Amino acid sequence: MVLEKLKQVPDPTYVHAGPLTDFVASLFTGAGMPEDEARLCAEVLVDADMNGIDTHGVCYNLDLHYLTGLLNGYINPAPNIKVTYETPGTAVIDADRGMGMIASVQAMELAIDKASKTGGMASVAVKNSSHYGAAGYYARQALSHDMIGFSMSSGGGRVIIPLNGRWPWMGTNPMAFAAPADKEPPFVIDMASSMTSYGKVSIAQAFGVDIPEGWAQDANGKPVTDISKRSEAIGQPPLGGDYDHGAHKGMGIAMMADVLGAVLPGETLSGMLLDNPKGGRFCHYFQATCIDGFRPAAEFKADMDDMLRTLREQESAPGAPDIQYPGHPDAIYFQKRTETGIPLPRHTVNYFKQMADQLNVEWTIDG
Amino acid sequence: MVLEKLKQVPDPTYVHAGPLTDFVASLFTGAGMPEDEARLCAEVLVDADMNGIDTHGVCYNLDLHYLTGLLNGYINPAPNIKVTYETPGTAVIDADRGMGMIASVQAMELAIDKASKTGGMASVAVKNSSHYGAAGYYARQALSHDMIGFSMSSGGGRVIIPLNGRWPWMGTNPMAFAAPADKEPPFVIDMASSMTSYGKVSIAQAFGVDIPEGWAQDANGKPVTDISKRSEAIGQPPLGGDYDHGAHKGMGIAMMADVLGAVLPGETLSGMLLDNPKGGRFCHYFQATCIDGFRPAAEFKADMDDMLRTLREQESAPGAPDIQYPGHPDAIYFQKRTETGIPLPRHTVNYFKQMADQLNVEWTIDG
Repeated sequence: MVLEKLKQVPDPTYVHAGPLTDFVASLFTGAGMPEDEARLCAEVLVDADMNGIDTHGVCYNLDLHYLTGLLNGYINPAPNIKVTYETPGTAVIDADRGMGMIASVQAMELAIDKASKTGGMASVAVKNSSHYGAAGYYARQALSHDMIGFSMSSGGGRVIIPLNGRWPWMGTNPMAFAAPADKEPPFVIDMASSMTSYGKVSIAQAFGVDIPEGWAQDANGKPVTDISKRSEAIGQPPLGGDYDHGAHKGMGIAMMADVLGAVLPGETLSGMLLDNPKGGRFCHYFQATCIDGFRPAAEFKADMDDMLRTLREQESAPGAPDIQYPGHPDAIYFQKRTETGIPLPRHTVNYFKQMADQLNVEWTIDG
Repeated sequence: MVLEKLKQVPDPTYVHAGPLTDFVASLFTGAGMPEDEARLCAEVLVDADMNGIDTHGVCYNLDLHYLTGLLNGYINPAPNIKVTYETPGTAVIDADRGMGMIASVQAMELAIDKASKTGGMASVAVKNSSHYGAAGYYARQALSHDMIGFSMSSGGGRVIIPLNGRWPWMGTNPMAFAAPADKEPPFVIDMASSMTSYGKVSIAQAFGVDIPEGWAQDANGKPVTDISKRSEAIGQPPLGGDYDHGAHKGMGIAMMADVLGAVLPGETLSGMLLDNPKGGRFCHYFQATCIDGFRPAAEFKADMDDMLRTLREQESAPGAPDIQYPGHPDAIYFQKRTETGIPLPRHTVNYFKQMADQLNVEWTIDG
């Protein structure tokens, strides 16, 4: 169970969400962002950590995407975000190469507003953006409005190797879907279209943990499992791994993100894939559906409770842990980390100290 | 490559789409359906065969679902299909336990009509239905309207075993997504949320082909790969197979179908899972999105061509066949089978003869 191992941060420094958000926001303002937008980006990242999505929190992508992109000029610290086209149920937003979270939170709010006004559903596509963090954040924005939320993101580095292909071609293009329940935690999918996000390979490398077949592949099409040989990895097969195990399905989901996130708003292939230095270019898709367009939301949520609880109570396989539905572990993490704080690995604390020095930012977190 | 083997029908009888549709329609009218609706159902099934989706054509599910359901009274041969609730962008349809295709074609037409009128997007959920055939058919209905189509279906027999669970709990709940191109065949995903549809296991049994790990599992959680032991199989793990290989993702997709197809229109858990004799109870979800809500469809389709062709032209892995995108093999099958006819396996021809006798239907196909 490699995934379980990667959840055990070695030698952790625990920091609570509040001070961690303040500190990360100060790094972003130190890199040139306005106060409010810096805070929003920090909140989205820390929210991922609070939900146990360590790959998409503060520990890996500041170096890989955000701070590096802001400092090398690839991410625009003060974007002029514009709606470039809209109808009552759709819109296209140009993110002006800003931090992905800023246009994305706006885009999902716009989709929710449009869905609310039409009583049905609405969607917004965002082009010319950067990495938006955990896809699930935006799907979950719909929940408090008694709506179902959906999001996909396309682009970034080429990581996923198409079925039968030699070289990576798509990003790890995630899909997120969230639906509210009443007493049960909401149902939330947040999945890369590979077996695991490439961030998990980074965590495995940071922790020195070997990885399962299917998480990384070399230029000869052979699996990389010895994490000390990570540099030989050129990408990942799609979810499924090979044809007989459904790799055409993972590939299809990755391409669905390209269709909705990139081709729909007019982010063309050349823009997506050729213009892609460190920092990456990304684009996104957001969708909101009013539950009341089908039946009273209160009834829907009661039936969601019924379904989710009944599933959790099904018999486990011999020796297996309890059954959990997608979104349930997130809620448990949130509760636990509200008490303990978020466990930061050593390399993150070191990186934070280094960047605080470099950006003249006050060191406000313990540890 | 087991999937490749299952495409080679042993001892085939080739029948062209026209006469096959006529004959299958006559079986349905023989079982009590009105002429027009019988023909529509036959067309949807034969269309799956034409697109190479042999699991969802005429060869397996007449016995497993349709004719058996019509004859044992579980499927209503003359349903009174009603819209029970609607807004400008949403609707709920009660399929009155008719053949799934009838309410489904209507539902997707309604979603397309509503999306067209709002200029944005619309969705329709269908409850109280039966098996609807290949999900991709309905997603593809959107294409000629310059829309993106999406469909999921929930229910039927319990087949997918939740991650960590002992017994199957969900149906093989498929997801379909279709987007048009200009000169390239359209992009079409049509996937069960397990590694492979359970129908493929039926084909493997019919052809005597052993199956890969992950296609079937016994009550002790062990994989069934020896097809002669198929009777020991109680279900399938979700796409991914186990946690480290992403089974929580396949499980999430299966549950997304339950949320959209079942909970949204108010098909409750007890209705879905307890009331489930042979024939099954199913419910569905359909969604249409106007491409013109984002940018001119002609530009979108030209960029789809560019993306799809560029992907196809990427270098293959050493020894691997050409890269294909989802939907491309379907188009090749369609062209080939337009020339050769559809290869029916011996057991299907035998079943057709037996049912023609039983229903007093004229034998109008050669072979």
